[in-house]
Amino acid sequence: MASTRDLVYIPISRAKSLVQNCLKAVGAKESHAEDLADVLVAGDHRGHYSHGLNRLDMYVKDIQTGITNGDAEPITERETPATAMVDGKNVLGPVVGKYCMNLAIKKAKECGVGWVLARQSNHYGIAGYYSLMASSKGLIGMSMTNTSSLVLGTRAKSCTLGTNPVSFATPGKSGDNFVLDMATSTVALGKVELQKRKDEKIPNGWGADKDGIETNVPGEVLRGGGLLPLGGSEETGGYKGYGLAMMVEIMTSIMSGATYGANVRKWGTTERIADLGQCFIAVDPNVFCPGFNGRLQDYLSLQRDLEPADSTKPVLVPGDPEVAHQKICDEMGGIPYHKNVVKHLADVAARLNVEAMDI
Amino acid sequence: MASTRDLVYIPISRAKSLVQNCLKAVGAKESHAEDLADVLVAGDHRGHYSHGLNRLDMYVKDIQTGITNGDAEPITERETPATAMVDGKNVLGPVVGKYCMNLAIKKAKECGVGWVLARQSNHYGIAGYYSLMASSKGLIGMSMTNTSSLVLGTRAKSCTLGTNPVSFATPGKSGDNFVLDMATSTVALGKVELQKRKDEKIPNGWGADKDGIETNVPGEVLRGGGLLPLGGSEETGGYKGYGLAMMVEIMTSIMSGATYGANVRKWGTTERIADLGQCFIAVDPNVFCPGFNGRLQDYLSLQRDLEPADSTKPVLVPGDPEVAHQKICDEMGGIPYHKNVVKHLADVAARLNVEAMDI
Repeated sequence: MASTRDLVYIPISRAKSLVQNCLKAVGAKESHAEDLADVLVAGDHRGHYSHGLNRLDMYVKDIQTGITNGDAEPITERETPATAMVDGKNVLGPVVGKYCMNLAIKKAKECGVGWVLARQSNHYGIAGYYSLMASSKGLIGMSMTNTSSLVLGTRAKSCTLGTNPVSFATPGKSGDNFVLDMATSTVALGKVELQKRKDEKIPNGWGADKDGIETNVPGEVLRGGGLLPLGGSEETGGYKGYGLAMMVEIMTSIMSGATYGANVRKWGTTERIADLGQCFIAVDPNVFCPGFNGRLQDYLSLQRDLEPADSTKPVLVPGDPEVAHQKICDEMGGIPYHKNVVKHLADVAARLNVEAMDI
Repeated sequence: MASTRDLVYIPISRAKSLVQNCLKAVGAKESHAEDLADVLVAGDHRGHYSHGLNRLDMYVKDIQTGITNGDAEPITERETPATAMVDGKNVLGPVVGKYCMNLAIKKAKECGVGWVLARQSNHYGIAGYYSLMASSKGLIGMSMTNTSSLVLGTRAKSCTLGTNPVSFATPGKSGDNFVLDMATSTVALGKVELQKRKDEKIPNGWGADKDGIETNVPGEVLRGGGLLPLGGSEETGGYKGYGLAMMVEIMTSIMSGATYGANVRKWGTTERIADLGQCFIAVDPNVFCPGFNGRLQDYLSLQRDLEPADSTKPVLVPGDPEVAHQKICDEMGGIPYHKNVVKHLADVAARLNVEAMDI
């Protein structure tokens, strides 16, 4: 973690304006700029900085070069009372995601379940944003996306799996939520990069080298190797993480007709459109059994109240670290960014003649 | 693996008859005995011996003592076109499971998705049996159950999570399937027991001791410790397996109103009914995008054709080891059982005055 003297606290509204202004400057529709701002700033607010403003430049370039469409809207191609197939029309991922999850929520309210797939979509930020949309309406929400390949399947020598994240969120009582938001790899690539920068080894289970052999040297993962699926090696259950990553691929791209597996364009390249596949599910717990929120809250409390193995590390439930980060932001009046990130964002803004955030 | 001279090959029909006859002898309905036989023998046929005939005695006793109901039928309490809530009426798990998945399949055929929950259910054998029911009808099938607590949540000192398995199955072409069927713990308890019997250590990530500390000594896991969730320790992503186990608990017991978490009766005890919660989902891929089976088959082939890191270990997809086991059974004219298991089953049969399987 950076020293506090290197941190700058940026109010949420200011961070959102920056995203909106940059996107509008390169020709994105106002509503698209707003959707992207909501999702990226939510990523930072929840502490997932890898999926926030540090990717602003990427989205700006995607609109600038026209590889992502700044001036279209997703359309519903086919639907049943409980399902819909959406053509994302290659607009910004958050625009597709919000459109799809709103549709899933509407269907869940009408018949208990809404299951919506998108093809022709783009990077949509944190998967948890969309599951939380459903949770905030009293529903169970799920969201998944396929991604560029960074992960090795069990026994394989090359990366053909995305980090393929899955999120599941649902409300307890008084604003409390269970929010699982996880890549199906053991860790994100950023964690390996960080260890390399610190010149430290990585634990077993994080990555493999160019021959597909588990390694503790971060540089070997980054130079032609890849991430391992959740569980690590075959002996420690990595074939389960591999199976989960394939399941997400099937539920997103294979079912929707999007580009799949190793055919997805390489991470960081924009020579062709992403054509990602995404899945959005909303379910109304009240169609099954009354009293859901009370039971969930009890279950969350039972877990949190468990005696920890290490008294300095309380037992948490998924979503708790993110809520703790949001609380810090709210107390400090803004999201803490490293001053180098703020400088980088100022450069992006300056290039577009957009007012930068104050440092 | 046992020496082949210790193996006895039992034809599927003979194994099924044994289960049926034993269950009928203790008063189970004919159709219930058939359902249990189908599911247990499928477990063995697929190589999941921990969920097959070696549990016959448990089911027999459950009916004998009346702790499981041998003479009732599950009922649908509430439904929408896409959902149903089923009261399992405390009958055998496979009876509840087949009832629920058939309902989910019917709903998926009608409106694209069927999402069915059960409470008041019992151990239902391999989760994959039910997802394969949907897959055999051209659908995507999912099945989950909560279980007795054997797994420690991340940072916790005591077991409050079940092994909470999840299965996902869907068809490619020419009878090929993708079948994920996995506990959300790194390994099953049986694997730890096996290492202890062999007096060998267990790898990191499998289990923890009575203080919640990761251990390599199988005896420490078995004496008051517990299994670790998929991913192992917090550092190697165990908090993700923990989150998945909680997600399964929410999708099964919390949503259905069944008994949840550490409240579920202890494994092996029958002082009160199990009241397990289960979830069955079927989805028709054709409501989204035509050509699903071809894309899936292509994806499976791409994975299987990858160059392996170790040339003696080909890259597989979930379900391949089970199909390989089925092939052996079919070639040998029966399911290979260790002769000690067959003897044990003969004892069970003798006690009930039922004809044993030939050895």
